[in-house]
Amino acid sequence: MAQSESNRALPKALAFDVFGTVVDWRTSIAREVAPVLLRIGRSDVDCHDFADRWRARYLPALLASNKSESGFVKLDSLHRTMLDALLLELGVEENTLDDAARTDLVHAWHRLDPWPDSVAGLTRLKQRFPIVTLSNGNISLMINMARRAGLPWDAILGAEIAQAYKPARQAYLATAAALDIAPEELCLVAAHHGDLAAARSAGLMTAFIPRPLEYGGAPAPDLSYKQEWEFHADSLTGLADQLGC
Amino acid sequence: MAQSESNRALPKALAFDVFGTVVDWRTSIAREVAPVLLRIGRSDVDCHDFADRWRARYLPALLASNKSESGFVKLDSLHRTMLDALLLELGVEENTLDDAARTDLVHAWHRLDPWPDSVAGLTRLKQRFPIVTLSNGNISLMINMARRAGLPWDAILGAEIAQAYKPARQAYLATAAALDIAPEELCLVAAHHGDLAAARSAGLMTAFIPRPLEYGGAPAPDLSYKQEWEFHADSLTGLADQLGC
Repeated sequence: MAQSESNRALPKALAFDVFGTVVDWRTSIAREVAPVLLRIGRSDVDCHDFADRWRARYLPALLASNKSESGFVKLDSLHRTMLDALLLELGVEENTLDDAARTDLVHAWHRLDPWPDSVAGLTRLKQRFPIVTLSNGNISLMINMARRAGLPWDAILGAEIAQAYKPARQAYLATAAALDIAPEELCLVAAHHGDLAAARSAGLMTAFIPRPLEYGGAPAPDLSYKQEWEFHADSLTGLADQLGC
Repeated sequence: MAQSESNRALPKALAFDVFGTVVDWRTSIAREVAPVLLRIGRSDVDCHDFADRWRARYLPALLASNKSESGFVKLDSLHRTMLDALLLELGVEENTLDDAARTDLVHAWHRLDPWPDSVAGLTRLKQRFPIVTLSNGNISLMINMARRAGLPWDAILGAEIAQAYKPARQAYLATAAALDIAPEELCLVAAHHGDLAAARSAGLMTAFIPRPLEYGGAPAPDLSYKQEWEFHADSLTGLADQLGC
């Protein structure tokens, strides 16, 4: 692999998917949901299953938002709509879990823990490359998460800047444009083949970091997009090794 | 002063003017311009005077851009237009200073040095408050400057995000909106009374940091906006003292 890397052009900047690639949303959300379920007497609901079912509503919500003509809505708001729908499905009434409690659960997405290699990997990669977010998370979510987890971003870019959610082409192109580089000079780093496929289609370079525990060991939902990516490393520190950082 | 501070509400986040407040544009631009003037045989032009005359075109260019109906143009482009006009005024022909050399001079604004207290002050303030840029500089300019100077921003916000230049109200409001806080929860930190007056008019809190050397000791052009601000410190480390960081 080192041999083929040596002939490969290097990107001018690295943009990162965050949920799943840099942070472990499933374990973190389950950790926050567990005491809430206990408090409302719903310990029959598994907290990891709750996290999975909340996240399962994510992609459909983004696609619907991209198609909507009522303007861009921040992910915090979409997370709230998805949460309300899930709670309704579980038979949790509004007076069982009030507005403040629901808002706090939505903010659990601001408190996700990084994978063990994330901070060390990003810190090394930042020495050589500008590192920015190319996430669907809103700016305040990304700032809160970064401050809590110690993620050393150079800038928070992505969906809110683009006013469009990945996998919309505009999300990738607007991130490159904000950096004043061509799409092919920007490399998306992600754990998701679907995200990387959309980035490649928009002209970006791609780096795949498998996160086999993202779905608790269950297969990823986007395996049909699997292909050979420009870079492939087992961790962000591994990517730093490959990129000479 | 400590007494009156103690009864004062604290902001939820700090937004910083950058040119003049965090970095010393005049000395840095003069340093970059000097060898260029020497190379083209124009050592009759003083490099600090060149910097001042370039910067003097700044506010009129921003105001014109805000009024223009042709859409937002990044500061790098405005800096180029201002540079071309100044060179024309000085009788410097296009073939004396070519496109690449002019682009490099425009990028000198990405390479400004911080004031001696800036990095230490921001690092302390960041421990307690999210710190973001609320500058007219474009995102790539702010990223390049921060990486070179070691400015530890949590996020790059301001004019490019707002698609409007300070002192337009939208520049301040869009920065608070990106942070998901009310304008009155955000404090602008700036060395310029005019900037602070516009921020206050948009509802923000204000902190004044005098930078007596910004114009090489000459009086600031916006003294008519001078008033009492919520905070007033001699340096960013002094502001950190006042805010208990």
